[in-house]
Amino acid sequence: MSFHNLHRLNASEALQLIRDDRISVEQYAKSLLNRIQERDDQVQAWAYLDPELVLSQARSLDSIPKEQRGPLHGLAVGVKDIMYTKDMPTEHNSPIYRSSFVQIDASPVMTLRKAGALIFGKTTTTEFASITVGSKTHNPHDYGRTPGGSSSGSGAAVADMQVPFALGTQTAGSIIRPGSFNGIFGFKPTWGAISREGVRFCSINLDTVGFYARSVQDLQLIADVFRLSDDEDPEPFTVRGAKFALCKTKVWPQAGPGTVQAMEKATELLRSAGAEVEELVLPEEFNKMQDLHAFMMGGDVRVAFLGEYTVAKDSLDDFMVRQVENASKMTRRDQLNALDTIASLRPKIDTIAGTYAAILTPSSPDEAPEGLGSTGSAVFNTMWTALHVPAINIPGFSGGNGLPVGLTLIAPRYKDRYLLNVSEEVGKIFKEGGWASRL
Amino acid sequence: MSFHNLHRLNASEALQLIRDDRISVEQYAKSLLNRIQERDDQVQAWAYLDPELVLSQARSLDSIPKEQRGPLHGLAVGVKDIMYTKDMPTEHNSPIYRSSFVQIDASPVMTLRKAGALIFGKTTTTEFASITVGSKTHNPHDYGRTPGGSSSGSGAAVADMQVPFALGTQTAGSIIRPGSFNGIFGFKPTWGAISREGVRFCSINLDTVGFYARSVQDLQLIADVFRLSDDEDPEPFTVRGAKFALCKTKVWPQAGPGTVQAMEKATELLRSAGAEVEELVLPEEFNKMQDLHAFMMGGDVRVAFLGEYTVAKDSLDDFMVRQVENASKMTRRDQLNALDTIASLRPKIDTIAGTYAAILTPSSPDEAPEGLGSTGSAVFNTMWTALHVPAINIPGFSGGNGLPVGLTLIAPRYKDRYLLNVSEEVGKIFKEGGWASRL
Repeated sequence: MSFHNLHRLNASEALQLIRDDRISVEQYAKSLLNRIQERDDQVQAWAYLDPELVLSQARSLDSIPKEQRGPLHGLAVGVKDIMYTKDMPTEHNSPIYRSSFVQIDASPVMTLRKAGALIFGKTTTTEFASITVGSKTHNPHDYGRTPGGSSSGSGAAVADMQVPFALGTQTAGSIIRPGSFNGIFGFKPTWGAISREGVRFCSINLDTVGFYARSVQDLQLIADVFRLSDDEDPEPFTVRGAKFALCKTKVWPQAGPGTVQAMEKATELLRSAGAEVEELVLPEEFNKMQDLHAFMMGGDVRVAFLGEYTVAKDSLDDFMVRQVENASKMTRRDQLNALDTIASLRPKIDTIAGTYAAILTPSSPDEAPEGLGSTGSAVFNTMWTALHVPAINIPGFSGGNGLPVGLTLIAPRYKDRYLLNVSEEVGKIFKEGGWASRL
Repeated sequence: MSFHNLHRLNASEALQLIRDDRISVEQYAKSLLNRIQERDDQVQAWAYLDPELVLSQARSLDSIPKEQRGPLHGLAVGVKDIMYTKDMPTEHNSPIYRSSFVQIDASPVMTLRKAGALIFGKTTTTEFASITVGSKTHNPHDYGRTPGGSSSGSGAAVADMQVPFALGTQTAGSIIRPGSFNGIFGFKPTWGAISREGVRFCSINLDTVGFYARSVQDLQLIADVFRLSDDEDPEPFTVRGAKFALCKTKVWPQAGPGTVQAMEKATELLRSAGAEVEELVLPEEFNKMQDLHAFMMGGDVRVAFLGEYTVAKDSLDDFMVRQVENASKMTRRDQLNALDTIASLRPKIDTIAGTYAAILTPSSPDEAPEGLGSTGSAVFNTMWTALHVPAINIPGFSGGNGLPVGLTLIAPRYKDRYLLNVSEEVGKIFKEGGWASRL
């Protein structure tokens, strides 16, 4: 592979070349920077990127003796701009934090940096990762469309091969949706499995740190570094003979043709590979999950932004203002009912999911909507976020405009490694789903 | 009152004098600084205190036109040193963060500062507010004893009249216990009611921000600023005719004579005031709360310190190292069982507590133990922390050495304002409990 095309490598491939001394971290970083230079006018995935800082870090990594190198040595990571980085500003896409520079690493950044990752730059987000408007980033597959949000830049940068990895967060659908819209793997681990220290709060009960990559193998590298572990080390997964649940959920009427076809095609592909696929209708008590998620999030946002509201209300998006003011007059009774009902459903979904190889469910209503006005709907994601189960977007399907559509696999809580193993095999099968990146 | 004794004023009293132009914020601040100068060799409540910064802030507050002043104008607040302050370092009592300076305000600090509070300095904590050893602070009532922890400096500083207010956090018993040992009010609101943005994580499921003051009236001022609200604005509370639950809990055998006598005396005082007091034995399903709390905390600490563990394991207390390494081999099954069981008990304790005026329960096994080797036991606090209910330490009783012993009042979640109203009246009655500060 020419040095000019190093940016196209997945993380695991680049890692191998670096380990074998076939490329330096600096060469790899230059290739990524070249890619960004070519593409940034169109994609605009970065809130902060300093090529000089990147190259000096790359050279530092190259100077580390081989035996002292970390497991992610030299791999570039985009960091969502709601996470602190000791060498870059963190602006949360908020005028209140313009040029704000907190000189510590958020816990996930600290862990990745120590593992040898090259902390590349800050990727765009909607304001405080809390709303669905206001990201400047374009979908790399069609500049006239959103890459989704709130992890807009992370999703677009990984899809566009500007970095092999990126950090995201999900409170409603902010990891899975950009995964679907950009045609990449987006992994939301079990809630609580990754530290949120140094990651801006939106909802304490919902915010979950996760990762983007272009292969499941790459996500496995990350999972190792974060010591994600199930009770049992999972065996390699075999699709043949496995039973999947097809869960359309109560919001299925909101699925557009792209997602409807993806679910059909996925069923067909899994069955062709020897799996059973049966439709799962969740018990009625799950039917209110959309509303319960909204109550949970509303109660949390109300508290999370009181500080900014008191000092700079006019610089805060109206969504946060309304929550702080409790404009909807949500009662504590409603809020507690949401907390307690959702909590009571978590062990139930674990049990249900545990009877299948995984639950297969939509990632988004359809391919990415046109325009940058909205990052799209999280309607298919909120339930799983609130239930704290691990979720992963598997790409492979395509909408009416030839743009990517992904589907979500779900496993019980703290079956993260198991879910990655399932996803590795299912990902291979979904490659036949009709979509492949032209980037 | 002489200017030399301004430090003795409760917050509400100082506020009135400042509002009436009888004292300036600078005069008030000087009195507190004098107090600290006299006492700091013995008490050592501060991790960071810059008198020049305090006085320049005080003068800035004095220069604000009256009509633009906030509701806490000029009131000094100590900030536990795990919360970011834009003008002071935040060290977490960790060698890893020696001289670390994050130049933003944690959300609670932001809210208080905007309300006109004088952000006075950083109060001592045990390492990351996560352990029971290593605070340098002495109990102001007996220098040979601990002030409790982890909010050691906040508890001691308020008791010693070095500041009228301080911020604390509780993960096990870190607000209530220092409240009891120092003879002051310590208020842990409903979990989630105060933002933890910019407050170091120990346990995402347990950490709760709260407050110290020397009167409930002062806590009401704080509660207003943080917009704590119940579904119904509570009426002023009347003890006569009210029914209290006396809840000794399963760990009652760990109560020493000071706490046993405090519970007896409290019962007697409440009955004399016309209240009913009946013993409450919680249903058996609450009996495992100590273990469940430990599992919940263990799972969270494991994640919270992975970053520091990877970069500086040798500088991390062994407790955190063992959790990150999961030395106890806790399973995910145990961890999830703790999360789900505790969650299922929260609405149940709400219902139980709701049938009483409040639940009265121990705050600590006894008066503060001797020595600074340990900040004491949180055994009487952990259950209530995990249940997310508001809790408040009411001082008034005394142990065998004449040191303070407090008791806890508990109300259902999001009955914070109601609980403050109850506490205001109960606090008056407990003043006859046999202890009064000699400071």
